[in-house]
Amino acid sequence: MNLRAAAQPNRLALRRMGIDTYQEPVLYMHGDCHVCRSEGFEAQSRVELALRDRTIVATLNVVTGEFLTPLQAGLSEAAWRLLGAREGDEATLRHPAPLESMGHVRAKVYGRRLTATAADAVVGDIAAGRYSDLQLAAFVTACAGDRLDMEETIALTRSMTNAGERMQWGAGMVMDKHCVGGLPGNRTTMLIVPVIAACGLRMPKTSSRAITSPAGTADTMETLAPVDLDVASIRRVVERTGGCIVWGGAVRLSPADDILIRVERPLDLDSQGQLVASILSKKAAAGATHVLIDMPVGPTAKVRSAQAAAVLARQLQEVGRALGLNVRVVQTDGLAPVGRGIGPALEARDVLAVLRRQPGAPAELERRAMGLAGAILEFAGAAAIGTGLETAMAVSRP
Amino acid sequence: MNLRAAAQPNRLALRRMGIDTYQEPVLYMHGDCHVCRSEGFEAQSRVELALRDRTIVATLNVVTGEFLTPLQAGLSEAAWRLLGAREGDEATLRHPAPLESMGHVRAKVYGRRLTATAADAVVGDIAAGRYSDLQLAAFVTACAGDRLDMEETIALTRSMTNAGERMQWGAGMVMDKHCVGGLPGNRTTMLIVPVIAACGLRMPKTSSRAITSPAGTADTMETLAPVDLDVASIRRVVERTGGCIVWGGAVRLSPADDILIRVERPLDLDSQGQLVASILSKKAAAGATHVLIDMPVGPTAKVRSAQAAAVLARQLQEVGRALGLNVRVVQTDGLAPVGRGIGPALEARDVLAVLRRQPGAPAELERRAMGLAGAILEFAGAAAIGTGLETAMAVSRP
Repeated sequence: MNLRAAAQPNRLALRRMGIDTYQEPVLYMHGDCHVCRSEGFEAQSRVELALRDRTIVATLNVVTGEFLTPLQAGLSEAAWRLLGAREGDEATLRHPAPLESMGHVRAKVYGRRLTATAADAVVGDIAAGRYSDLQLAAFVTACAGDRLDMEETIALTRSMTNAGERMQWGAGMVMDKHCVGGLPGNRTTMLIVPVIAACGLRMPKTSSRAITSPAGTADTMETLAPVDLDVASIRRVVERTGGCIVWGGAVRLSPADDILIRVERPLDLDSQGQLVASILSKKAAAGATHVLIDMPVGPTAKVRSAQAAAVLARQLQEVGRALGLNVRVVQTDGLAPVGRGIGPALEARDVLAVLRRQPGAPAELERRAMGLAGAILEFAGAAAIGTGLETAMAVSRP
Repeated sequence: MNLRAAAQPNRLALRRMGIDTYQEPVLYMHGDCHVCRSEGFEAQSRVELALRDRTIVATLNVVTGEFLTPLQAGLSEAAWRLLGAREGDEATLRHPAPLESMGHVRAKVYGRRLTATAADAVVGDIAAGRYSDLQLAAFVTACAGDRLDMEETIALTRSMTNAGERMQWGAGMVMDKHCVGGLPGNRTTMLIVPVIAACGLRMPKTSSRAITSPAGTADTMETLAPVDLDVASIRRVVERTGGCIVWGGAVRLSPADDILIRVERPLDLDSQGQLVASILSKKAAAGATHVLIDMPVGPTAKVRSAQAAAVLARQLQEVGRALGLNVRVVQTDGLAPVGRGIGPALEARDVLAVLRRQPGAPAELERRAMGLAGAILEFAGAAAIGTGLETAMAVSRP
C-alpha cells in the first residue's frame, strides 16, 4: 500500500494513546505527518478535530518517537472521551476558527467591564472546549480578587447557567443546598436530602467528588449507591422518591464551571464573583427555586470572618434574585472538622450511624445536618419559623 | 528479575519519549509506577526530577498504554534537554518544595504592588523552571495592560537581568540596538552591526528567531554564519571584530524573558511593563551601556500612534536609567514592510545586495539601517550631531 496515496487530505486514523493529561485534550501527531506539514501545525498548535457530530479543539504535541505512525492521530484520554472516539475511527483535522471571544478576555484584563454579550461569548467557547489551559488561566486571573462587580457577576452566572443542560421540574418549589466548604467530614447532605424528601419536598442534589480533600459527597454516597446518573435517571429517581444524591460531573449542568474550577484550583485563585457564579449557575441549571447556603466561618475555613460572610451572603442573594433563585445563607461554626471519619467509607459510616441512631453516632454531624434541614423546611414554609429543627429531628428519629 | 525488588525508592530509568511539548517540560509515568503510588502523584501533578547537578520541575502525564513500563520515567524533549539526560540515566523523583513565590503573584492579582523582593522571588522561580504554564499565564495576566507602574517595572527588569548570566565588557561603551517590531523584513541589524564595528565601537548583538513571522534576524544571519554561539565564543568574536550577530536563545541572558514570552504570545497579551522589562533585561544582561531603540509607528505596527510611542519611550528611558543604561528612542515609519524578500534566504539576499551595492538593492532597507547606524554613532559621540548618517554611509560604501 502506498501510504501517501492512501492518506486522505486532513484525515487521520485515531489512536487512543492511554495518556492521562487530566482534562486538557491533547493530540499527538508525528512530525512527518502530511497534515502537520500541509497545515503548518507545530507543538502547542491548537487543532480542531471533527468526528461524526462532535468537534473538539486539542493542543498538539509532536511525536518523533516510533510509537505513532505519520498516518495516525493519537489522543489523550480526555480528547478520546470528549470526541466520543472508537477504535478504527478517522477524524478530520483543521485549524480552529479564530477565538474571537479572547478579545473580551483581553478587554477585561485591560480594565474594561465584562458585558452580558462578552460573558456569553467567553462562556460559550469555554463550555465548547475551545479555550486552552493558558487562555483559561488568563480569564480566571482577569476576574480574580474582586474584579467582577455585581452586574458582571450576574452576567457571568447567567451565561454559565445557559451554557449547558437545564433541568425543569414544573410548578412548585425545588429545594437545593450548598456548603461553601472548608470543613473536612462535613457530610450533612446525605442526612438532609432524606429528611427534606420525607417532608414531601423535592431536592435533586448534585454533589462533587473529592478534589483537594479525601472525599466529596459523591464519593461517600458512592460507597452506598451508584452516583453517576444521567439527567433522565435523576428525573426518575426524584419523581419517585423526592430526592437524589448524584455526582454533578456526570451531567452537563453548567459545564463551564467544571472547566474553570480545574484551572482555579492549581492556581489557588479565589474570586468572589466566580465563586458566586460557580455555586449559583449549578443550582439554576439543576432547576432549583430555593437554595440554602451553609457558610462555615472560621480561621481555617474558606470564609474567615463574619464580615466576609456578610459580604458574600449579600452577593449570593442579589445574584440569585437576578436569576430567579431564592437564596438564604446560614452561617455555621467553621472551627473544626465534623464527624469522626475522613475518607469515603468512614464518612459513610458516620452518616449511617446517625441515620440508624447508633450509640456513639457523631452528635455534631447530626446537629449540623438537622439544623440545616430545619432551615430548609422553614425556608420552604414546610415548618413554622423556629420549629424547623424540631420537625427535622422528628422526621429523622421516627 | 523481580521488578518490585529492583525498584529503588523514588528512582526511575529515564526514557526519551520523542514528544515535543514545546518548552513546557512534561514527565510521563505509568499508572502502576511505584513512585506514582507511594507519592500520590496524579495527572497534572508537578514533580521534581534530580539528575547529577540538575533539578527540574515537570508536569506529569499518566500513561496506561504499553509504551512505558512502571520502572521508566518518560521525558518530553524539553524535559530531556533541561535535565541534560542521557540514555541509561536514572533520576530521583519527588514532590517539589511549595512554590511560595506564587503568593506574590496572588497578591498582585488582588491589587497589591510587586515589590523588589516579590519580583526577585517570582522571577528566580520562573528562571529555574518552577512555574507551570498555568502559573506563568496568571503572572503575565496579573501584570498585563498597564498594571505595572514605573517602580514595579524597574523591579521586574532588575530581577530578570539578575536571574541569568551577565556579560561584562570592561571599561568603555558597549552599544546595542533593538527594534520594537511589527515590520516584516526589517533586517537592519545585519547592516548596522558591521558599520558600528567598523567605526571602532563594540556591539555584541543577540537576536531572536522567528516566532510569528517567517524569519527572525537569527534565522536570516544563520543562512550566512553559525548563530548559536555560547558566551565564551561571543566574547572571542566581539574582541576580535568588535561585533557579532548571534541567536539569543543559545545563551542564558535573562532566561525568564524567554519563558514569559512563550506564554505571552499565545495569549496575545501586551503588557507595557513586561515589554520594557523584556527589552532592557536582555540588553543589561548582555553588558550594553547604550541602547538605541528603533520604534516603528504605524496603524499595523506594534506601536500605533506617536502619543503611544512617546509614553513607551519615556518608560524605556526611565527604567534604563535605573539600571545604568543609556536609552535613546528613534521613531521610524511603521507603514509598510521593508526590503523585497520575506523569509531567511530572501531577506539575507536583500542584506547582501545592500552591502555589495548591487543595482536594485532595496533602498528603503539601506536608508533605515544607515539612519539607525548614524543615530548610534551620534549617541556614542563617534559622529558629530547631524553627521551620523553621512558617516555610516561613508563606512558602508567605501
